[in-house]
Amino acid sequence: MEKLFQVVDQRLAGYLEQLKAFLSMPSVSADPENKAITADTARWLADHLKSIGFPTAEIYPTEGHPILFAHYPGPAGAPTLLIYGHYDVQPVDPLNEWVTPPFQPDIREGRIYARGASDDKGQLFAHIKAVETVLRETGSLPVSIKLLFEGEEEVGSEALGKWLPAHKDLLACDVLLISDGGMIAKGQPSIDYGLRGLVYMQVEVEAAKSDLHSGSFGGAVANPINVLADILTSMKDKKNRVKIAGFYDDVLPISPEEKANYAKLPHSDKQFLKDTGAPKLFGEKGYTTLERKSARPTLDANGIWGGFAGEGAKTVLPARAGAKVSMRLVPNQDPKKISDAFRAHVAKVAPKAVRVKVSEFQGGLPFICPLTDPALQKAAQALTMVFGKECLFGREGGSIPIVADFSALLKAPVVLMGFGLPNENAHAPNENFDLDNFSKGIKSSIAYMHLLAEK
Amino acid sequence: MEKLFQVVDQRLAGYLEQLKAFLSMPSVSADPENKAITADTARWLADHLKSIGFPTAEIYPTEGHPILFAHYPGPAGAPTLLIYGHYDVQPVDPLNEWVTPPFQPDIREGRIYARGASDDKGQLFAHIKAVETVLRETGSLPVSIKLLFEGEEEVGSEALGKWLPAHKDLLACDVLLISDGGMIAKGQPSIDYGLRGLVYMQVEVEAAKSDLHSGSFGGAVANPINVLADILTSMKDKKNRVKIAGFYDDVLPISPEEKANYAKLPHSDKQFLKDTGAPKLFGEKGYTTLERKSARPTLDANGIWGGFAGEGAKTVLPARAGAKVSMRLVPNQDPKKISDAFRAHVAKVAPKAVRVKVSEFQGGLPFICPLTDPALQKAAQALTMVFGKECLFGREGGSIPIVADFSALLKAPVVLMGFGLPNENAHAPNENFDLDNFSKGIKSSIAYMHLLAEK
Repeated sequence: MEKLFQVVDQRLAGYLEQLKAFLSMPSVSADPENKAITADTARWLADHLKSIGFPTAEIYPTEGHPILFAHYPGPAGAPTLLIYGHYDVQPVDPLNEWVTPPFQPDIREGRIYARGASDDKGQLFAHIKAVETVLRETGSLPVSIKLLFEGEEEVGSEALGKWLPAHKDLLACDVLLISDGGMIAKGQPSIDYGLRGLVYMQVEVEAAKSDLHSGSFGGAVANPINVLADILTSMKDKKNRVKIAGFYDDVLPISPEEKANYAKLPHSDKQFLKDTGAPKLFGEKGYTTLERKSARPTLDANGIWGGFAGEGAKTVLPARAGAKVSMRLVPNQDPKKISDAFRAHVAKVAPKAVRVKVSEFQGGLPFICPLTDPALQKAAQALTMVFGKECLFGREGGSIPIVADFSALLKAPVVLMGFGLPNENAHAPNENFDLDNFSKGIKSSIAYMHLLAEK
Repeated sequence: MEKLFQVVDQRLAGYLEQLKAFLSMPSVSADPENKAITADTARWLADHLKSIGFPTAEIYPTEGHPILFAHYPGPAGAPTLLIYGHYDVQPVDPLNEWVTPPFQPDIREGRIYARGASDDKGQLFAHIKAVETVLRETGSLPVSIKLLFEGEEEVGSEALGKWLPAHKDLLACDVLLISDGGMIAKGQPSIDYGLRGLVYMQVEVEAAKSDLHSGSFGGAVANPINVLADILTSMKDKKNRVKIAGFYDDVLPISPEEKANYAKLPHSDKQFLKDTGAPKLFGEKGYTTLERKSARPTLDANGIWGGFAGEGAKTVLPARAGAKVSMRLVPNQDPKKISDAFRAHVAKVAPKAVRVKVSEFQGGLPFICPLTDPALQKAAQALTMVFGKECLFGREGGSIPIVADFSALLKAPVVLMGFGLPNENAHAPNENFDLDNFSKGIKSSIAYMHLLAEK
């Protein structure tokens, strides 16, 4: 392995030149005029893969931007590692805030500046360079490698979502590796092994047909704002636990191993309060801040409206009011079961003096890769080896629906091995990627292939 | 009295011509360009009062539109009746919906059509014609009559509010009569003897400094919408009683006489539900619909806002949310005491994980003229005599702050004797006034003067 790492160091300048060429392609997926450019980028990538030895690199046209799939078979009986990434990038506005043009990659102070440098071209390319390094030095790979690169991640992965089910066999693998995220801090490797799911509902309450005068009618007709407030309040108890029947039934408890991991993560409640500006912590009793915001399910109103919200006083008894309410789910909660329970709860608590409508927006499954999974442990081992510091495990409170979808479809562990750093301006002007993480990313990928090949 | 009523009938055509002249003056107070016109109208009224025998009719200029005061002394020891009205009118938009122009009074189908016909020039003028009739027939009045006409009722009576305290002695009276409202239905005289007061508050809740991602932060930071909902819910119990400490302490209970009166009022819960479109009645347990909406205090949210209220789903944990909450008060609740209790309640229930700001808008005192007050009973007697049907007593759920202000300042009973009818389009195109009510209004005023003079 040391030998391979040395080769990476020797070839790094050349790899960076290739990365520059990749980054100079303006593959902004949000722009519908850009189809020729994303097609060119996918073709460039496919050609590049073939040039480094992939027997095939297939481009799948879609209604949107193309999907690229390549496969390099490993030894008989070796496990298959599927690596996911995306070659599309965010728009570049505001362009005038860029120090150097977004599609003219520039290296300064140990970073490469360009749109897509960190999210996700640089990360994706590190894995390609890992494969290339191993192939050129040893003539083969210790595992089978499958690559899946899409061109619509920044606009919702619609084409991929449609494409996946029919290509389940093509993607069959033992581990799915996603490098489209980050690590806690420079020099501190970490892996997010869990994501929360999402159920997003809307509740609308109507009493009278039209707005009424609060003097002439107040006291005789239900007030939809007050009723809506009662409905929201009924959903939580004083300990900030969700009171919807069955809500916690399937929740996977936080294991002692996880508790131990949480304790290792850098976090200060004091700093957290300073960063958010909140006067005091809040949430479900019995759990730490990090646990509450990543490993425990929540219920939050995301918006509310009704009646008069302008300046001054208007004595209206409004006809209707509404709220958006979302629930972050944790493994093994089922979004469908939770949304049904939510509907049942509203139906139960809403008084007969109002009409209530409950609707639902697109949600997503929660995801977890068990801490004990060898695929996860080996990934951490690879990172620890390359970065020279113990890899930490975290759970992310947000949702990446495609991860849970992959996990459910492929029935394989999903490892989120991210090399981005917190201040790399993904989605903002002057996006950049740490060069040290680029080379360590290549090495981590090499190390992971070899560790996976070990029985 | 019969004789005087006959004279009214004989002179009605002439009185109507004079009313037309009064109605043809476009005294729209909302238009700041209209000062010359309102000044003309006040002068016309003053001249008219002098022409029918008032020794003086004083015009008080204000920063806005002028106030007119006139006094005709009665016999020594006779009570003084102060009559309030307003000569300003609402704007006329949308002009194209008027069948005949708003300031070219037109008589058709027993009604006179013009802006201000019902609200309030026609009603005010009926009292002037009552005085004129009595003066011309008998050479004197049975009571002292004071007239107070303002020109800013439709824009908030600001000038009158400032003027009143310094003119308390000038306005000293035994009864204040206000004819700026209506009766239940044509042919059914009624008097509103109570009005609710108002306290109007705003509650703003802030948790974090700025909006946060509900995935990354949900569960760790308070949600201002949920907290606001909890605060609103904490204000009422399951029987729809207000839970703010001390809220009901000073509430005047509904007397058995009032209960009996309420029972006489035309009301159908079924029709009420049909009119409002509400699926079911709602409100404080133990009271009828009419009682709840006029004689019992209420608490209603008038508006609420916070977070994302657009189409679709946005996973925001909002930084702040707010609501407007008003309380209708009944005698003898004190707005100051209630707003203090409201603030204390919010301070008590709000969790320390949020910052809360409570502010207050202009409110108003509740008002009641006790049912047993002779001034009220004699007014009802006058109406019963003229209309030939028993006068009913009602309480109005809305607030007219100036009425309570008058009542508090003058320490005299206030009688709301209105001659408007429900479908006279006050504040709307094609405003009109029933001619039968115009003549019965004159007669009722004559009858009232005489009844008040009786010991």
